[in-house]
Amino acid sequence: MTKIVRTTDGTTTRYVVQDEDGWHALEGDLFGDWSVGAAVAAPETVLAPVVPSKIVCVGLNYKDHAAEQGKPLPAEPLIFLKPSTAIVNPGEPIVIPDRVGRVDYESELAVVIGRRATRVAHSDALSYVLGLTCMNDVTARDLQKQDGRYTRAKGFDSFAPLGPCIAVGLSPDDLEVCGLVNGQMRQQSRTRELIFPVAALIAYISRIMTLLPGDIVSTGTPAGIGPLQAGDEVVVRVEGVGELHNPVTRSPS
Amino acid sequence: MTKIVRTTDGTTTRYVVQDEDGWHALEGDLFGDWSVGAAVAAPETVLAPVVPSKIVCVGLNYKDHAAEQGKPLPAEPLIFLKPSTAIVNPGEPIVIPDRVGRVDYESELAVVIGRRATRVAHSDALSYVLGLTCMNDVTARDLQKQDGRYTRAKGFDSFAPLGPCIAVGLSPDDLEVCGLVNGQMRQQSRTRELIFPVAALIAYISRIMTLLPGDIVSTGTPAGIGPLQAGDEVVVRVEGVGELHNPVTRSPS
Repeated sequence: MTKIVRTTDGTTTRYVVQDEDGWHALEGDLFGDWSVGAAVAAPETVLAPVVPSKIVCVGLNYKDHAAEQGKPLPAEPLIFLKPSTAIVNPGEPIVIPDRVGRVDYESELAVVIGRRATRVAHSDALSYVLGLTCMNDVTARDLQKQDGRYTRAKGFDSFAPLGPCIAVGLSPDDLEVCGLVNGQMRQQSRTRELIFPVAALIAYISRIMTLLPGDIVSTGTPAGIGPLQAGDEVVVRVEGVGELHNPVTRSPS
Repeated sequence: MTKIVRTTDGTTTRYVVQDEDGWHALEGDLFGDWSVGAAVAAPETVLAPVVPSKIVCVGLNYKDHAAEQGKPLPAEPLIFLKPSTAIVNPGEPIVIPDRVGRVDYESELAVVIGRRATRVAHSDALSYVLGLTCMNDVTARDLQKQDGRYTRAKGFDSFAPLGPCIAVGLSPDDLEVCGLVNGQMRQQSRTRELIFPVAALIAYISRIMTLLPGDIVSTGTPAGIGPLQAGDEVVVRVEGVGELHNPVTRSPS
């Protein structure tokens, strides 16, 4: 299994590849033809793996989470958008804004789209996936309930931690998805519990909006969501992908 | 008054400037330092003026439109996102998807952000505006009512016609905004009727999510929205900006 990491030395941003032989340069275009190049040192800095044109998220996509929210199971995927400005890198803080009430973690498997997808067939949908990563769909829960709509509650700067890598060649069908706060397990499920699996999501979304290379589809969160406090450390762990760690702080003003 | 148009010769995309002396090349960086260069021919092809990282829209921001929708006036701006894949150029078709029911035009003044805006003060907000354009916030009205959320209903490919130019140096405070279908006036209001004017919107949105250069804030639509049919031509006209024309077609499949 191959993991692709976006890294920077402070001036240049590039992709590196980790496989069983260690770390290598990525040669070519990640969204076109690429190959594994010369050996390199392990990256010191790990960035969110893409800068997407959009982040398409899915609500209530695990039965147990729909139940804990007191919502009926959706008949179709419930999609919403997060702005790319919400992304933070692994290790960067989730900043709780002033006067928004409760802010929750939501641990999710996220899919990185590899090529332009418009109205793709369910049977062909997984061929549009470049690989898998972790996302924390951080949510201002009180605002979400107050607004009905999700844009504000899920769109604050720092509310989309993403990473640490793109795992390539991994089936999304039955992976463990966990959420931990301060080392304690809070969410633990498997992607076989998804109401709408990855191929169904890509087929559905791409009938509405074209997915572009680098776009993110985040697949929804299992039961066990809960609030974050300044000083917490939250981890999203997806089997075969790795762990996305972020500290939590509070907005100074 | 200066108008900036994004154009292409099929291989290279560039900006040109129209002022009282005619058409000129734009030299430099539109989002940095730029100046008016040598005279050029009028552009043959007019593109949507930006490729934004996000389109932030505002719902129910004219009193008369809130009334026709049977909704109370919002206490805060009601924001939502459209994906950049919804953008089409002036003259390109709005494509009505299969099985979505009624699809409406919504004529709007849109703001092009000129520089990075995070938590900006109301008094300073207009200094973050590069200029003004027209947007048609095309909406699948039945889906909007069915979903409650706006992402699907407003996110289809071609549901964000944008252009034809960026009008620079124009106050957004009292401009006529009109919508026409097949030459007949359907919407006619002025931006002085906005519940939340442009400066208030930028201050509000930038407290939630950072606005980046080229991002679009679309300010909401006045009363008079209505359905589109294949074969229609719809025009959004904003005083001082110009007219955004788009034909309407139906998805073949």
